[in-house]
Amino acid sequence: MRFKFPLMAIGLEVAIIILFFFYVEYETDQTTNQQLNRTNATGADRSMELYPLFQDVHVMIFVGFGFLMTFLKKYGFSSVGINLLIAALGLQWGTLVQGLLHSHGHTVHVGINSMINADFSTATVLISFGAVLGKTSPIQMLIMAIIEITVFAGNEYLVAEQFKASDVGASMTIHAFGAYFGLTVAGVLYRPRLKNGHENEESVYHSDLFAMIGTLFLWVFWPSFNSAIAGTTEGQVRAIVNTYFSLAACVLTAYAFSSLVDPRGRLDMVHIQNATLAGGVAVGTCADMKIHPYGSMIIGSVAGLVSVIGFKFLTPFFASRLRIQDTCGVHNLHGLPGLVGGLAGIVAVALGASDKSTTAMQAAAVGSSIGTALVGGLITGLILKIPILGQPSDEQCYDDSVYWEVPRWREHDRHFHEPIIHKQLEPEL
Amino acid sequence: MRFKFPLMAIGLEVAIIILFFFYVEYETDQTTNQQLNRTNATGADRSMELYPLFQDVHVMIFVGFGFLMTFLKKYGFSSVGINLLIAALGLQWGTLVQGLLHSHGHTVHVGINSMINADFSTATVLISFGAVLGKTSPIQMLIMAIIEITVFAGNEYLVAEQFKASDVGASMTIHAFGAYFGLTVAGVLYRPRLKNGHENEESVYHSDLFAMIGTLFLWVFWPSFNSAIAGTTEGQVRAIVNTYFSLAACVLTAYAFSSLVDPRGRLDMVHIQNATLAGGVAVGTCADMKIHPYGSMIIGSVAGLVSVIGFKFLTPFFASRLRIQDTCGVHNLHGLPGLVGGLAGIVAVALGASDKSTTAMQAAAVGSSIGTALVGGLITGLILKIPILGQPSDEQCYDDSVYWEVPRWREHDRHFHEPIIHKQLEPEL
Amino acid sequence: MRFKFPLMAIGLEVAIIILFFFYVEYETDQTTNQQLNRTNATGADRSMELYPLFQDVHVMIFVGFGFLMTFLKKYGFSSVGINLLIAALGLQWGTLVQGLLHSHGHTVHVGINSMINADFSTATVLISFGAVLGKTSPIQMLIMAIIEITVFAGNEYLVAEQFKASDVGASMTIHAFGAYFGLTVAGVLYRPRLKNGHENEESVYHSDLFAMIGTLFLWVFWPSFNSAIAGTTEGQVRAIVNTYFSLAACVLTAYAFSSLVDPRGRLDMVHIQNATLAGGVAVGTCADMKIHPYGSMIIGSVAGLVSVIGFKFLTPFFASRLRIQDTCGVHNLHGLPGLVGGLAGIVAVALGASDKSTTAMQAAAVGSSIGTALVGGLITGLILKIPILGQPSDEQCYDDSVYWEVPRWREHDRHFHEPIIHKQLEPEL
Repeated sequence: MRFKFPLMAIGLEVAIIILFFFYVEYETDQTTNQQLNRTNATGADRSMELYPLFQDVHVMIFVGFGFLMTFLKKYGFSSVGINLLIAALGLQWGTLVQGLLHSHGHTVHVGINSMINADFSTATVLISFGAVLGKTSPIQMLIMAIIEITVFAGNEYLVAEQFKASDVGASMTIHAFGAYFGLTVAGVLYRPRLKNGHENEESVYHSDLFAMIGTLFLWVFWPSFNSAIAGTTEGQVRAIVNTYFSLAACVLTAYAFSSLVDPRGRLDMVHIQNATLAGGVAVGTCADMKIHPYGSMIIGSVAGLVSVIGFKFLTPFFASRLRIQDTCGVHNLHGLPGLVGGLAGIVAVALGASDKSTTAMQAAAVGSSIGTALVGGLITGLILKIPILGQPSDEQCYDDSVYWEVPRWREHDRHFHEPIIHKQLEPEL
Repeated sequence: MRFKFPLMAIGLEVAIIILFFFYVEYETDQTTNQQLNRTNATGADRSMELYPLFQDVHVMIFVGFGFLMTFLKKYGFSSVGINLLIAALGLQWGTLVQGLLHSHGHTVHVGINSMINADFSTATVLISFGAVLGKTSPIQMLIMAIIEITVFAGNEYLVAEQFKASDVGASMTIHAFGAYFGLTVAGVLYRPRLKNGHENEESVYHSDLFAMIGTLFLWVFWPSFNSAIAGTTEGQVRAIVNTYFSLAACVLTAYAFSSLVDPRGRLDMVHIQNATLAGGVAVGTCADMKIHPYGSMIIGSVAGLVSVIGFKFLTPFFASRLRIQDTCGVHNLHGLPGLVGGLAGIVAVALGASDKSTTAMQAAAVGSSIGTALVGGLITGLILKIPILGQPSDEQCYDDSVYWEVPRWREHDRHFHEPIIHKQLEPEL
Repeated sequence: MRFKFPLMAIGLEVAIIILFFFYVEYETDQTTNQQLNRTNATGADRSMELYPLFQDVHVMIFVGFGFLMTFLKKYGFSSVGINLLIAALGLQWGTLVQGLLHSHGHTVHVGINSMINADFSTATVLISFGAVLGKTSPIQMLIMAIIEITVFAGNEYLVAEQFKASDVGASMTIHAFGAYFGLTVAGVLYRPRLKNGHENEESVYHSDLFAMIGTLFLWVFWPSFNSAIAGTTEGQVRAIVNTYFSLAACVLTAYAFSSLVDPRGRLDMVHIQNATLAGGVAVGTCADMKIHPYGSMIIGSVAGLVSVIGFKFLTPFFASRLRIQDTCGVHNLHGLPGLVGGLAGIVAVALGASDKSTTAMQAAAVGSSIGTALVGGLITGLILKIPILGQPSDEQCYDDSVYWEVPRWREHDRHFHEPIIHKQLEPEL
């Protein structure tokens, strides 16, 4: 850590500023209207209409994802802190890569619309971060952010511009992509000595409550995530309504199956923190389509069910047989529900809920998102294996103190309540 | 819990999806404009103007109410988790019941406006949940949600459509209703063996801080709650301004009287968490009326005072004499301030601050809200007494571990710092 | 505390209500359009467009500032609680003082715009509160709020109306002003016996996580803070974009330098909680100017660097040599970055990024903000030294229990895990 991390962070920031100098400008009214496919009114006014949705997404990225991962008893600083670092780097890099792809190398125009898309691009890395949480260094995460966002932008361009597939809430391009990218990286970085777990890989009571802050802000603002880039205001309202009902239905099945899979019928906080959100992921692809409110509730119900089953049965299987240690269970929150979303999109298009896309193109989008994730994740994993990148040893996993100054006492340290020597107050002069 | 809870949750979700299939559709531009009493512009555009207010209310319901109740040291999972469950079920059921009442059994049209009202309907159950917190099972809460929202929708229909009474911020129809409903249930479920308290019925330092997350998000977004369904934009702005000043004034009197009623002049966290919000409740009925900013500050000041006095003197009296154990003190946050709001509404209408309602109709609305709450609460309490509904024993009260898998260590468990056996790391293969 | 504090709080509230009775009314459409410099559309509609930005600022003031200061292990109640008290009083007083200055003593019209400015005025006191955190009584803070907001409103009037200087995000008039005001008060209230620290002046693991709630909500909503009072919608969008990129760049340098200044390369939570926000402060003055996205990133990068260096080297120097004990390091988050913002404003105006202000007037605004802060802070400090205001003794510093009822157990108390006598459950009657 001593010099590699700070020099890398400074180097990346300097490079990005230089690229911004050459390529990035404010959008004007004209560019706004082009981006939003609108002609009337001023672009600035239209931008401000989107701003509340941007802010909701912004809270999800920094507060939602950040706190969701604080469930580990000794890894809260890293969860919320490295989440902030990744997202802050990612949104700058995402602005550049997405912008240059869409402008074909000409000037990139930034505004509220590009900020939403830049925030979206960081979500892929934050999802993948969940798969390798506790087992990687900040340096490795900076590298992953740069590579993953580049691959994501390429795939998103393919899906949206070439296939013309629908994916308004990004079930495929963000959630499935981010999950399978991260799982592949986790597979490459497999740690055989941790196959029976690690003493730090557990929660304490209050760390689980901190995680619920993340869960609830993600849950509440998910309708904004799925509707922010909808093409029309009508589609936007539909995306909000569908996500609202999908998430509500998902909560009911997540609670029901969390209780059902436990021998004593008790609820599991891991399921509540994660599976209750699967409905937002799964309804993403077809959120703006006319799938009827009951349709979105069916999608949400299935997602909640699938997610809990994944946590209960697939995660252990992944760890033992596939040698993939998925710390946050991103496969169950983003991977499987993302696939459900991709399939729901195919079905919805087949049933005529959209007139913009075809089933073949929707299927191609699923394939492309998974394919680029696996290839990108494999390459990234191999790069991250380079020994000089500061990866923690097996013993140091899931512990903030490797990369952070931690307070003398952590509530869960055994020496927390040992007598301390009271500092003498200085005598008054 | 083993099968009753999951089967009930799944059954309810399936039933709701079937009802949605037959009765619920997206609103069109036409239906939006009817709902919002507007004629110009497209309905979708109008909907999106309401969306930021919806999101504020949404945060209040899920983050605000959820975390407000995490003050108990061992009941945080249930507070924030069962709050999510109740609200997710309630908003689906509320959409149906409110919609069918207003459409007279025809197709229900859903959009941002119906989402705001559905979120509102869940608030009644969350308030009542506060009265019985720690003493009921998730199954009982599912049942209470279904019954209470049905009764609420009936009373709201009466107040708004029959009496044509004003209650924009729902002091009467949500706050007083929810409080007296919950108190009646708590009275029916009275536990004589807990009359001297329970060792788990207390906070620890950090649980009180978690509760402040709830308090602050409720406090900050309350102006949106009181203005979201105002009929005109002018009334909406007035509701925001009045609630802003009422809450601010309420904070000053809540702090003053919290200190004043303590023998040593110290502030009590229970008052700060709750009584600071009473100004939002009490100004609700007349929030959109021309009561002048100083008028709203008088209402807020009185509410803060009344609420602290309630916590200090009425709650012990309720527990000992009326045999009503009000865990969160909802009578002091929602009951009394709701009545203050109802009275303030009568006075404001009498003074000519509104041209839509009459004092007789405002008084009828107070009576109807309390009356339906008492009858509804009584019936609900008797149903919840049915022994098979999984109610915890007296010893199990206020403890998550009855219905949740809790971490091996909770910070406040006495064995928290006992030596643990470190898991052996597997030797490298 | 016994009677002084409650009587003072009640007295202030009564006085404010009387002043509101004589001077404050709702704004009408006409007054709104005047305030917002707009002519078309209804004022109420325009107000509602600003409302989402107001709500973001509102969250920053009450949740952001409140939780940011909860990092101390035993001072969380006071941080979040006295923050609420100060802000609730301050927004009422700010409404009056700002309004009367701008209306030249005539009727003050309140609406969303005045609410944003009133919230802004409280930020100055909350910043100063950070400098004296843990060493003052609630009574002292009520007095500071009244004086500081009055001085702030005077200086702001000078800067905006007389100098016509640009300061859209208030780097000078809020951040530098609040910091130097608070530092001067802290200097006057210097406690020589605490020069080697205090055993309570440290964090525990979870108190640092609570503080991150504050950090993240401030970080996420800062673009709204810097853009809320921009004169045109175009300037508003630019202020949002510039703040977004300034903050992102700031995170990278804050992390880099936090690691660089540590002998073992570890990150310091104090830096992450505070220095990551310096980019929002520093870009404030020129946020709505055409400084180009890369320009805002340079400002943010410098701010992150300067802030960490300040924490590492200046804070100890201030405490030992200047006899100023700055509890939260507000000099590093608000003072220095505020000055960077003032200088950036001068440079930007010199380079032609604004056509409204001149370099001389920008420089005058910096001087006036620092000057009034030093004089106002000195007078306030001397008043707060009056012995009857309940200031805690040196031993009582940084401990909630002086002014609050605290739970029997705090997680960090050594007796936390001592056996407790279980209350007997009453036998069933």
